[in-house]
Amino acid sequence: MSSASLLRAAPDVIAAAARRVMARCEELARVSADAASIERVYLSPEHARVNRLAAEWMRELGMRTWQDAAGNQVGRIGDPAAPALMLGSHLDTVLDAGRYDGIAGVLMALEVVRLLREPGVDGWTVRLPFAIEVVAFSDEEGTRFGKALLGSSAVAGTWNDAWWDLTDADGVSLRRAFLEFGLDPARIGEAARRPGELVGYLEAHIEQGPELDRAGEPLAVVSSIASARRFQLVVEGEARHAGGTPYDMRRDALLGASEAALAVERICSAEHHIVGTVGRFEAFPGAVNVIPGEVQFSLDLRGEFDGERDRVWDALARELDEIMGRRALRWRSREVHSAPAVFCAPLLREVVAGGIRATLPPRSDAPPVIFSRAGHDGMALGAVTDVGMLFLRNPDGVSHHPDESVSAGDVAHGIRALAEAVLLRGTERI
Amino acid sequence: MSSASLLRAAPDVIAAAARRVMARCEELARVSADAASIERVYLSPEHARVNRLAAEWMRELGMRTWQDAAGNQVGRIGDPAAPALMLGSHLDTVLDAGRYDGIAGVLMALEVVRLLREPGVDGWTVRLPFAIEVVAFSDEEGTRFGKALLGSSAVAGTWNDAWWDLTDADGVSLRRAFLEFGLDPARIGEAARRPGELVGYLEAHIEQGPELDRAGEPLAVVSSIASARRFQLVVEGEARHAGGTPYDMRRDALLGASEAALAVERICSAEHHIVGTVGRFEAFPGAVNVIPGEVQFSLDLRGEFDGERDRVWDALARELDEIMGRRALRWRSREVHSAPAVFCAPLLREVVAGGIRATLPPRSDAPPVIFSRAGHDGMALGAVTDVGMLFLRNPDGVSHHPDESVSAGDVAHGIRALAEAVLLRGTERI
Repeated sequence: MSSASLLRAAPDVIAAAARRVMARCEELARVSADAASIERVYLSPEHARVNRLAAEWMRELGMRTWQDAAGNQVGRIGDPAAPALMLGSHLDTVLDAGRYDGIAGVLMALEVVRLLREPGVDGWTVRLPFAIEVVAFSDEEGTRFGKALLGSSAVAGTWNDAWWDLTDADGVSLRRAFLEFGLDPARIGEAARRPGELVGYLEAHIEQGPELDRAGEPLAVVSSIASARRFQLVVEGEARHAGGTPYDMRRDALLGASEAALAVERICSAEHHIVGTVGRFEAFPGAVNVIPGEVQFSLDLRGEFDGERDRVWDALARELDEIMGRRALRWRSREVHSAPAVFCAPLLREVVAGGIRATLPPRSDAPPVIFSRAGHDGMALGAVTDVGMLFLRNPDGVSHHPDESVSAGDVAHGIRALAEAVLLRGTERI
Repeated sequence: MSSASLLRAAPDVIAAAARRVMARCEELARVSADAASIERVYLSPEHARVNRLAAEWMRELGMRTWQDAAGNQVGRIGDPAAPALMLGSHLDTVLDAGRYDGIAGVLMALEVVRLLREPGVDGWTVRLPFAIEVVAFSDEEGTRFGKALLGSSAVAGTWNDAWWDLTDADGVSLRRAFLEFGLDPARIGEAARRPGELVGYLEAHIEQGPELDRAGEPLAVVSSIASARRFQLVVEGEARHAGGTPYDMRRDALLGASEAALAVERICSAEHHIVGTVGRFEAFPGAVNVIPGEVQFSLDLRGEFDGERDRVWDALARELDEIMGRRALRWRSREVHSAPAVFCAPLLREVVAGGIRATLPPRSDAPPVIFSRAGHDGMALGAVTDVGMLFLRNPDGVSHHPDESVSAGDVAHGIRALAEAVLLRGTERI
């Protein structure tokens, strides 16, 4: 297996590319629904603004651009008749987000295109047997409608019409949000790609966890993306006067839901590779002097393997029956997202590993291989094409938080490794 | 002690009065900020509308009316130079409220004025040695600013200028809300009454608890109003990615706050006459895939005696230190309301008991006497005048809920008992 560099770009060119990525991450961070934090959700005015910016940057590189039927921003360069190697990540964010989750991957993909077009560089001259597309996915996080991977599911052709009735916190349906954004729900199928159109999907992303930082490694090959299920749960009791109602007459939904949140922690942390998180949690009616009659909360459950994850959900459901029965409460759940574990394609794992070897100082051991507990657009893309992923070190593992960070040096390594991986895939020198 | 009726109104006149109270409760229920539920908070457009309605109804009875400097609606009848017996309750509500809490007491007070003016009725003819004022207090619940009894505190002369900076859920300060409502914060002192202007305060209210219903009694004398303290609490951890962060790196504010809510239940329910309620509870940033970095919640703590209540708060604070220390979280609290237990004045307890005896079928035992776990405007009025209260049966104890109810028959009993109590106080036949 080769570890020689195929890319002829000088180190200062790659350093400049990394600086551009860092500066653009700052620029995109300013496109936010909230003045004091980063918030950019699906089908929002901010979504439209970052798509316009990304399209400009794609056109600067000579790419043909379009916004697809799900609001994903796409750029393409190369033989119009050839299948494409798709590079990308997402530009949407969680609430009070960091600057790099998803965003860095889109911007690094653009720098890879720039390097491969650089005069004197192998890339275009070796006649890659595919076109390159860069996609900025529009909804990976699921922040607005509770359902993740809406953008990449549309591209993968796995859109589910039941999603049209999902609503955001203001009661706006996904269907209405499409129309207000200027998209036609009836045309969603046009975003779907056929397997023959794609040779694979490669994504660079910050780790969103502490493993590389703890190991002192800048880059890693991703072996698989964790399986995930998401639920919206409702606990129902009875709203009553906080002063007048003795404990023996209370059916306090908040106390039942609090026990539920603690049960998630207890049951998941007893397992090896499962994490469960209650992220949204709201009590109703939410007045200081009223016993909560209802609590709505979310559950995000992830595991390396689908079977383990499902067994934990079953155990949790039994525990919820016990808690709510004891407290004379009712509970129900609705599954809003389910994704099986996705295993990266062996060939793409190899080219990513080769890219890392060509980039970093020679070493005897293989580059680190880790599985991703976080979900990524590749989970959806796996339904239509091979998926490969490159992780960048994420200091202290802080992500989904304003303090999320990545170093310009690691971004430079990542850009080079991703470009080398594209060349390896194109020249089939693996 | 006399139990003869002083009131000469015929039963059908009192039944008609009760029907009017029930119909007006329905009418006021339609004045709501929300089309599907009852919501009428301090200094809202709905507050202004119910004040106008109450003022009309007061003027129909020949009362002189004004809205005071805190937005309370007042009506007065009788000798302008005499001190006043104040009757009343409040017209503001919790969120998703019932129709009767507070409202029934204001409307019953108006019917008492009507009965005492009725030709041939003892009331006015025996020359009551006081004027009568009916007050519709503007903020008893504290729904909007988290601080209860704002209206009655202004009347009692115990307004605290620190309250001007309290904010509602939209960040609007109490000061700004005053200005937007058309009230002048600088004139708040004009709402304050001097002790010499009042001979006492009498209030009828539904029990907001199940004791009378369980005992099969329609009416009770209130002995005291529970002491209460309210806190806004904040638990701080660290918002992180739900997938990428292993359990050993989590500082999940939601789990700490859930333990806190359960500790409130455990510690309070081990006591005899203490209830503690977490009514508001919100996790931030509140996204399905982010570990909550902060939770804000409310605590409402009530007890028959101040000392017991304070001892429980101290025990809770120690428990919170333990929970948050173990989870590497921080917590802080801000006390937003504190009211000592208020004991009803012996003379007014006697006239209320006499009113009940004159109203209900002859019985050998004394009318029931209960203490109120719920707070009432009388808690604030106690600082400026004697307080007496009459409780009406509240089926199943359901209050602060759309299903809150009271029967027209019990309202008729209550109107009569309150009118008899006024006459007893006026004729000093006790």
